[in-house]
Parts: sequence; structure tokens; C-alpha cells
Amino acid sequence: MNKIITIGREFGSGGRELGKCLAKELNFAYYDWEIVQEIAKRTSLSEEYVKSIIERQPLVAYPIHTGISFSPAYYQTHISHNMQIFQEQEKLLKELAEKSDCVIVGRCADYILREYNPFRIFVYADMKSKLARCRKNEPQHEHLTDKKLLKHIKKIDKQRYRYYSFYTGTAWGDKLNYDLCVNTTDMDIKEIAPHIAKMIF
Amino acid sequence: MNKIITIGREFGSGGRELGKCLAKELNFAYYDWEIVQEIAKRTSLSEEYVKSIIERQPLVAYPIHTGISFSPAYYQTHISHNMQIFQEQEKLLKELAEKSDCVIVGRCADYILREYNPFRIFVYADMKSKLARCRKNEPQHEHLTDKKLLKHIKKIDKQRYRYYSFYTGTAWGDKLNYDLCVNTTDMDIKEIAPHIAKMIF
Repeated sequence: MNKIITIGREFGSGGRELGKCLAKELNFAYYDWEIVQEIAKRTSLSEEYVKSIIERQPLVAYPIHTGISFSPAYYQTHISHNMQIFQEQEKLLKELAEKSDCVIVGRCADYILREYNPFRIFVYADMKSKLARCRKNEPQHEHLTDKKLLKHIKKIDKQRYRYYSFYTGTAWGDKLNYDLCVNTTDMDIKEIAPHIAKMIF
Repeated sequence: MNKIITIGREFGSGGRELGKCLAKELNFAYYDWEIVQEIAKRTSLSEEYVKSIIERQPLVAYPIHTGISFSPAYYQTHISHNMQIFQEQEKLLKELAEKSDCVIVGRCADYILREYNPFRIFVYADMKSKLARCRKNEPQHEHLTDKKLLKHIKKIDKQRYRYYSFYTGTAWGDKLNYDLCVNTTDMDIKEIAPHIAKMIF
């Protein structure tokens, strides 16, 4: 059986960076947005659309606002897309797990691949540290105020929580669902990654 | 400033074993029950008494049962002992932190020594694994049924939760209070300890 590492992560905590470092260290394949691209290809839905709902709980993704109404057919299609995407994601993750040793970031991979006995990491950090990391990585043309950035971080994590809980029936970020929880506040991810890699395999 | 590692742990998760391994690996001093002994010495209270209340929230330690009454003076003395022990513990932990690099298990050390910037580990495991570890370590003359052992584990952890929350105002086991949370289910503590040691310092 191939060796699998799954990474759940809070937005801005450096989970992707840790995933990339572990993959490099162990010479494993690394999957993150490649999964979105592949699902879009397989479902014939646009990449943007897949991206927009892949980490959101069905229905919650498109709340009803006063004055805006959606027909039952809209809901039917939307739910159907959600389920289609999740099923395709499940199939794809299992294919990747069969293919080679790999690191998979997000996508409920810890739950979907539970029969493959993955090493499940959760990456988190305090808000100050997450704000600083987001600020460092933000595109030059985009400068959110601290208040807006904080709101954005909270919103993304709320969506991740809902998505994970909806599909897995357990709590996102609950340490019992993971083998190792790493607080990246004040940590140099590049420095700790080789030791985590050795600890795992 | 000396290097400090603090370890919070669920009962039966192997937190002490990990602490000892880390101390050995890093050549750090290791403190666990030695703290109880020293407090007993300093407060002139019996070791058993200190041990019996050192991880319990004041008052909860001695609930009132029907038919048994305690005088207000009893409570006064009991609360006074609790505070005396906690103050002595705080003083002692700071002395140890000043003395040398060390690993300290339990005792709210992560909170008490927060100004010393300790590396804070929390060790946990699933119940099956905790039961197995407790069973392995139980004295030959003592054989609890699975049901009683389970109840005992839950009771100890509840006491730890209450004690920690009472003195620190935050939740015991909440991953935000720690730098690293290690799930020892299916893990060989002796094998992972050297890598954790290298990851920390």
C-alpha cells in the first residue's frame, strides 16, 4: 500500500507550504489544486465553478437573500453538481492513493482515504500569525484592510468547517481526527518539515 | 533562557513516556512526581494529600455526599491548602525553569511558565489505545474490569480538565494552547521521540 499524508489546515497557517516541503523531503507526489482542475475536466464543469463549491457545504454555498428567489430546479441542479463533484473527488483521490506515495492537501482526504491508513496532519496557528502569513502572500494589486483580511480568514475556515462536517459527519480540526496537529505560530516550516517527515516514515 | 518542554497528556496516552524519551534524547532534566514530593516537603503536607488534590479543582475534590457534612472551617482549610499548593507549585516550577533545560509533565506548566516560552506538547490517543496502555502498565495485583478501567480513565481526564481550566481559565487539551499535539494511537513513542526532539531544538 502506498504511503499517504493528508493535510487539513486553517487558512493562512502554512499547511500547503508544509505539504510541499514534506512531499519534496520524501519524494512523494503533491496534490492540491491539481485535484480541482482534474475534477473540472472530468465533470465538464468550469474550474471556477468547481473551485467555488468544492469547500462549501451544499445549499449554504448559495444562501437565499431577501428579494432573490431561486426555482426548485436551480436547487436540484446545484445539489446534483455538489454530489457529482464530491463523488468525482472521492474517485480521483482513491486513484491518486493507488498510483503512488503522495501528500494531499484538503479535500476531506483524511476521511475519504481512511482505508488507506493515511498519516493525518492538521496545521493551525494563532490569528496574528495567520494574518501575517496572508499579508506576506497577498498579490501586489490586492491590499485588504486588516479587518477585511481577518473576516476573509474566518469566512474561509467556516466554509472548510461546514464542508468537512457535512461530508464526514465529524468536526474539522478536532484533534482526534488527526495523528499530528502542528501549530505553526513562531515556527519555521522549512526547518521542521524534515523532522516531521522522518517522524512519519 | 533555558529550554523548556511542557507536556499535557490524557491519562494512558503515553505522555510521561514521551517526556522521559525527550529528556533523555536532549539531555534535559525531567520532572513529574518529583514536583509533588518537593511541594509536600515545602508545605509540610503529606505527599498523599498533595497528590490527592494536585490535579483537582478546589471544592470539587471533596464533594458533599448525603449524610456527610463538613463545617465551614473545613472548607476554609481545604481551599487554603489548594491555594497554598498551587502557589508553591508555581514557585517551584519557576525555580526549575531557571535551573536548567527541562521537561515538565502536567502541573499546568505550559501556563505557569508561559513567560519562559516553553515548547508545549499535548499527548492524546483514542480510547482503545489508552485502555491497552493502562492494561499493560497496571500493577500485577490490580486488575480492573474494562468497564472500571474506562471509567477510571474518564474520571482522571475530567479532573485534569477541571484543574487546568480552573487555574488557567482556558481549556485543557484545546490545541490552540499547544505547539504540537501528538496522537500516540498506533505510534511507537520511542521511535518518534528523537524526531520530535530535533524538531523542537
